Amino acid sequence: MVRFPRATDLGASMLTVYSADHSAHHPRFEMSDGTLMAAVEIPRRAEIVREAVAAAGLGPIVAPEPFGTAPVARVHAADYLDFLANVWERCEAAGRSGEMFPLAWPVPGLRRIRPNDIDGLLGYYSFDAGTPLTSGTWTAARTSADIAVTAADRLVAGARSAFALCRPPGHHAGRDLYGGYCFLNNAAIAAEHLRANGAERVAILDIDYHHCNGTQVIFEARADVFVASLHADPRDEYPYFSGHADEVGVGDGEGYTANYPLPLGTRVEAWMAALDHALSRIAAYAPDSLVVSLGLDTFERDPISKFRLKSADYPAIGARLAGLGRPCLFVMEGGYAIEELGTNTVGVLTGFCSAERGS
Amino acid sequence: MVRFPRATDLGASMLTVYSADHSAHHPRFEMSDGTLMAAVEIPRRAEIVREAVAAAGLGPIVAPEPFGTAPVARVHAADYLDFLANVWERCEAAGRSGEMFPLAWPVPGLRRIRPNDIDGLLGYYSFDAGTPLTSGTWTAARTSADIAVTAADRLVAGARSAFALCRPPGHHAGRDLYGGYCFLNNAAIAAEHLRANGAERVAILDIDYHHCNGTQVIFEARADVFVASLHADPRDEYPYFSGHADEVGVGDGEGYTANYPLPLGTRVEAWMAALDHALSRIAAYAPDSLVVSLGLDTFERDPISKFRLKSADYPAIGARLAGLGRPCLFVMEGGYAIEELGTNTVGVLTGFCSAERGS
Repeated sequence: MVRFPRATDLGASMLTVYSADHSAHHPRFEMSDGTLMAAVEIPRRAEIVREAVAAAGLGPIVAPEPFGTAPVARVHAADYLDFLANVWERCEAAGRSGEMFPLAWPVPGLRRIRPNDIDGLLGYYSFDAGTPLTSGTWTAARTSADIAVTAADRLVAGARSAFALCRPPGHHAGRDLYGGYCFLNNAAIAAEHLRANGAERVAILDIDYHHCNGTQVIFEARADVFVASLHADPRDEYPYFSGHADEVGVGDGEGYTANYPLPLGTRVEAWMAALDHALSRIAAYAPDSLVVSLGLDTFERDPISKFRLKSADYPAIGARLAGLGRPCLFVMEGGYAIEELGTNTVGVLTGFCSAERGS
Repeated sequence: MVRFPRATDLGASMLTVYSADHSAHHPRFEMSDGTLMAAVEIPRRAEIVREAVAAAGLGPIVAPEPFGTAPVARVHAADYLDFLANVWERCEAAGRSGEMFPLAWPVPGLRRIRPNDIDGLLGYYSFDAGTPLTSGTWTAARTSADIAVTAADRLVAGARSAFALCRPPGHHAGRDLYGGYCFLNNAAIAAEHLRANGAERVAILDIDYHHCNGTQVIFEARADVFVASLHADPRDEYPYFSGHADEVGVGDGEGYTANYPLPLGTRVEAWMAALDHALSRIAAYAPDSLVVSLGLDTFERDPISKFRLKSADYPAIGARLAGLGRPCLFVMEGGYAIEELGTNTVGVLTGFCSAERGS
């Protein structure tokens, strides 16, 4: 039995954008702990969050609008989108079924030249072996991106906040790379939609346990989107090869990337101190809008993560984010402690709403 | 029932170096066709080749001598050797058993910085998900390298030829990368041993079905080791990101790498034409010795490959190699059609010996 926060005393309400299409992406297995394990990025994740949002009376839950290819194509390469749209057909033509995993990657010493072969393509367009690709992945990923754009569009229309209940998540996906359960970078797509519709500066704050390597690489050379991330030290945690403190942006983007790698076992006090520092950087940047990549895998009982935040900490995080005083788009990322995922997600959102009302 | 060539009319004999230690590396599973499949690089491979060598009366079969770390350290980075020597202990400390597979790789857009975490290290030191690492891998790989050095040492002592019955194979392994069932690059280690013991120029000819990405990257900047490879076009076949025709060496090594990517379905006529071209390049280079990376996965019934060579073709290949008139070290690489692997391997070796006697 899962207990959700009650609807009383929520303060301001927040719109949630959700679609059942996410369940088209339903992997059974993933590569984890060095072998094939039961998948943790599963449909139940989105459903328990939707149930918690409804039970808390956070606000209306609406379906995404179809925005077509344009918002996605602002972030992702055309050949990558073509690959994702057609990969399953090619897998089936090769007589395959179930989850599909890549085989080899163009690490330093090899050349990233696009192969024809399906296994070669899977490696060309990915960076990990932990992300199952299934028959319904493209449907779910496209809808997940529409969810992010629909929610961002509410901010364009003047809303103070909105919640994009995206699944699959997005923050590991690069311009033409999938990985870390992510295929399309929903937060980046939302940020670009805000930029294309009046926002001069957008900040993305990623509070998922894992570094947002995809979001970072998409914006690292730009000054118009500030990316800050709190995450487990990449020396000790996935994605390993991104998220060090010395990654501060490149070229025109130098100074517009901020990384806060934190040790395994980090508790709320140290985590909140890093959050406050990131928020002070974002406040100084003075963005028109804030996009929060909302991962709940900082939770102490997350099965694949090693921070020690408790359920009672999440409303305080929402309140801190409200303190920035900017329109805020929440985009769902990770979080794998299924039973508490709804409670913790809604904890952040209700904490934000209560503080907004209070301010 | 497997039929081996008879010992009569073999011509010159050839020494084989073999050890039962290879069986310490005994994976059950590997990543293949997008999922976890039964391993194909298994102990029976080396055993059937040893049986065929004995049945054919090719020559004496001797154990490797322990050459210590020096010959291996000429090719591989110290930190990589340290990783391989200790990785299983770390896996066990992390509560793991069975086959171990990496999770994420530093592809372009990510940084190749060495992590502490075991999963991070597995990705840092590899380029594919298809290479199971097991409790006995280091023992088998070290012995496999000693086999190559022991056989090379016979050439140093004046032998016309020798056969290093290496397992696991080596040609995909780079200076600090494992992959493609390979951990230590036996052919490269043998070539360096020849170089360190009097050979001014060594040629490596790789006739495995797959491109020798490891061997190439180890020597691509050098003029003292010529590397030629016949293989399936990397656009269509593993390792995908290495082995294009325009890879001809870099810097001082420019002109000392030759790649012959061939289409899937290649038959013996086209394959032999490429071999003759490679041999003419090698003849012009006039090496003191030739190292042949001997893969038999060009065979028409190889379960993971798509060339069309027949068992009757392999003696002719051996004869062509003898035609070069140089001392020749054969180093075992791939070949997964178990039943015919002994016959086909011995076919090349006896073809070589017969032609040597005839010349």
